[in-house]
Amino acid sequence: MCAALFLYLWSHNMEKFSITILGCGSATPSPKHYTSSQVVDIRGKLFMVDCGEGTQIQLRRSRVAFARINHIFISHLHGDHCFGLLGMISTFGLLGRTAPLYIHAPEQLWSILEKELDFYYHDLEYQVEFMGFDPGKTTVVYDDRSLSVTAFPLRHRVPCAGFLFQEKTTADHLDREAADFYGVPQWDYNRIKEGGDFITADGTLIPHSRLTVPAEPGRSYAYCCDTIYNPSMIPVIKGVNLMYHDCTYSIQDAERAQKHFHSTAADAARTALDAGAGQLILGHFSARYPDESVLLNEAQQIFPSTILAKENLTVTI
Amino acid sequence: MCAALFLYLWSHNMEKFSITILGCGSATPSPKHYTSSQVVDIRGKLFMVDCGEGTQIQLRRSRVAFARINHIFISHLHGDHCFGLLGMISTFGLLGRTAPLYIHAPEQLWSILEKELDFYYHDLEYQVEFMGFDPGKTTVVYDDRSLSVTAFPLRHRVPCAGFLFQEKTTADHLDREAADFYGVPQWDYNRIKEGGDFITADGTLIPHSRLTVPAEPGRSYAYCCDTIYNPSMIPVIKGVNLMYHDCTYSIQDAERAQKHFHSTAADAARTALDAGAGQLILGHFSARYPDESVLLNEAQQIFPSTILAKENLTVTI
Repeated sequence: MCAALFLYLWSHNMEKFSITILGCGSATPSPKHYTSSQVVDIRGKLFMVDCGEGTQIQLRRSRVAFARINHIFISHLHGDHCFGLLGMISTFGLLGRTAPLYIHAPEQLWSILEKELDFYYHDLEYQVEFMGFDPGKTTVVYDDRSLSVTAFPLRHRVPCAGFLFQEKTTADHLDREAADFYGVPQWDYNRIKEGGDFITADGTLIPHSRLTVPAEPGRSYAYCCDTIYNPSMIPVIKGVNLMYHDCTYSIQDAERAQKHFHSTAADAARTALDAGAGQLILGHFSARYPDESVLLNEAQQIFPSTILAKENLTVTI
Repeated sequence: MCAALFLYLWSHNMEKFSITILGCGSATPSPKHYTSSQVVDIRGKLFMVDCGEGTQIQLRRSRVAFARINHIFISHLHGDHCFGLLGMISTFGLLGRTAPLYIHAPEQLWSILEKELDFYYHDLEYQVEFMGFDPGKTTVVYDDRSLSVTAFPLRHRVPCAGFLFQEKTTADHLDREAADFYGVPQWDYNRIKEGGDFITADGTLIPHSRLTVPAEPGRSYAYCCDTIYNPSMIPVIKGVNLMYHDCTYSIQDAERAQKHFHSTAADAARTALDAGAGQLILGHFSARYPDESVLLNEAQQIFPSTILAKENLTVTI
């Protein structure tokens, strides 16, 4: 019974792809919203995206097993996206962290972060590894067997990157009945799943396609914040299952959005529509909208499958 | 009626001396406590003491008119006392601040703060004035007509200062009946109040003491955090009306307190007793005490006039 429960939970975790919003306000923390941060959970691996002031406070409130966060991705060097880093680094140390922490950020950040680490943390018990990238280019910033993270240029007042989390397609599933029917030995299962054909004892070729069920396509999530309307990124994020997009303003404040290189709800929705996204989460709200449903309604006119971000919301793909 | 109300409120504000706790946890923010920060309101002038991460969040939640904060005092350069500074500086700018902001801190802070300001804030619309001091010395760090702030050494793992807010004695109050009786002209009132005698028309000297009622003594508040038990500071804070003292640990964890250069509740109470303080506020709590009344009880055994700090508590002298 316990073993079955364990296996169920483990396999459930293996399939998991979720995003937990820690902060979705813009510019400054307010009584309503923390500044930008979220945790992406892909099959039990945790990645933080952006780290505004107060992120660690939210992290403690959430159910995220934050000691397992090994990678933090920073989109750009505005304070509302990165002022929580130093405190987070400190807290990880105080909680006994020994594993390295990888910070993937626009390369310019290192020029100040290095000095800050040197000033405040003489005796940090773990390594902070800075993985700088050029936010003006589309670059794979993280890559392992099961997923990759690609940074792609956004359009903002300072160099800014979005992030595409792309799950890699797993091996096809074995059709056990077919495998038994054709006498495929167990030790050969993996090779079949990964694309191999099988030759029976009498020399008949049984193609891979007859012995397997195709794997589900890898799931994907795109974080697009902060940015003005930016259609040039659409090819990178085409067909994404879930998108989080800058929605600082309503279309009524389009001029202000233009001026500050942010998006309106309509911009976000149009992007989701043109990218063929599965679902859109609006975030990075300006404090000028006491009722954000105005943004939601505006987006849903164009892209019905839209929701509003809010603190501690978890969205699962 | 309106004029009377205005005068009442204005005079009430003129007498005000209060401390609002924004954060009284230690080391890291937790679901229970924000890290160190408070606002001292003396006759309408607002001073911030320490600025841990998340302070601006708490500030927004409080009723403090934070746009009127012109001076921030930093006790020492541990992150839980100063990581909220950058975000605060940014937010003040976004809210349209033009008046200078004075940061009084151990002089070493400037070596990193200068670089951070240069990195993040090219276009700040107001001036950040850094007023460094040597935390190893007793120094007046702020002085005006009605109050002074003195930094004095504490004993911690890094150089650390406490702050004494001392209201200056106002001029004595005029005894109007006596003044009228002796024919003191109105234009001479101020001189009398400030210590002058009066000579009547027939040449009789009427001493100051017969024409006035003594002013109340200036009120005082001492912020003593972070520190191990530190009796050498007692002469500086002797007779203080209100004291906020490091109370990271219980006496049962005295060894840990010693090791980390913090105080126990008993240490804080002993200090308050020996200093002849009016009232003691315990703060900077370790997260290891789910129920802080254990600290309160411990202190009250020695110094009954003790209370626990908590977020958004305002204590008035």
